[in-house]
Amino acid sequence: MVKRFGQMIKVKPEGLAEYKKWHANPLPGVNEMIKECGLKNYSIYSRGDYLFTYFEYEGNDYEADMAKMAADPTTQKWWDIVKPLMQPLEDREEGEFWSDMEEIYHLD
Amino acid sequence: MVKRFGQMIKVKPEGLAEYKKWHANPLPGVNEMIKECGLKNYSIYSRGDYLFTYFEYEGNDYEADMAKMAADPTTQKWWDIVKPLMQPLEDREEGEFWSDMEEIYHLD
Repeated sequence: MVKRFGQMIKVKPEGLAEYKKWHANPLPGVNEMIKECGLKNYSIYSRGDYLFTYFEYEGNDYEADMAKMAADPTTQKWWDIVKPLMQPLEDREEGEFWSDMEEIYHLD
Repeated sequence: MVKRFGQMIKVKPEGLAEYKKWHANPLPGVNEMIKECGLKNYSIYSRGDYLFTYFEYEGNDYEADMAKMAADPTTQKWWDIVKPLMQPLEDREEGEFWSDMEEIYHLD
C-alpha cells in the first residue's frame, strides 16, 4: 500500500539559488538511494522562503528504510551540503528537520 | 504526459476546522468533476496557517479543463463554501487564488 507524505520547511533566503542548483543535479547516488529505500514520485516545490515536498512510499518498513538512507555515506555527504541551506520551522517537533504536514484531502 | 502541480495558500485561522470538515466529506459531485477534468493523485496538506496541494493532470488541454470545472454549478457552490475559509498569499500573482510554486526537484 502506498503511503503519501507532505512536508514543509523554509530555505534560507541566501541559500535558495544554491539549493536549486544542487537539486537540478544531485550528487551521483542520491537519487538511486532514494529509490532503493522505496520512495517514489518525489517532488520539491519552492515559493518565497517556503519549500514543500510530496512523495510516496511503497516499501514495507518506512522507519527501517529511512534509517538505511541515513546510514548511506553518499546521502550523508548530500545532507551536509543541502541542510545548511535550509531553515527548519520554528514550531517543528523535536527531531524534525522537514516538518510533517497533515493530509486533509486526497483523491486518487 | 502527466503534468504535476504544487500550489500554496493560507487558511484563515478561524476557518481551518471548517475547511477540514468539508474536505473530509466534499459536496456530492465535486470529486467526480475533478476526475472528469483530468486531475488525479490530488492531495491537500495543512500545517499551521499554510495549505499545500499537489496534483497531477493527465488531460490534453489544462486551460479548457479548468474552464470546464469553473463553469460547473456544483463546483461553484463548493468554491462559495470553501474559498471564504482561505486567505490568498499577499504576494500572489494577479488572478491567482492558490499560488503556483516552482518545481525544483522531481524523481519518478
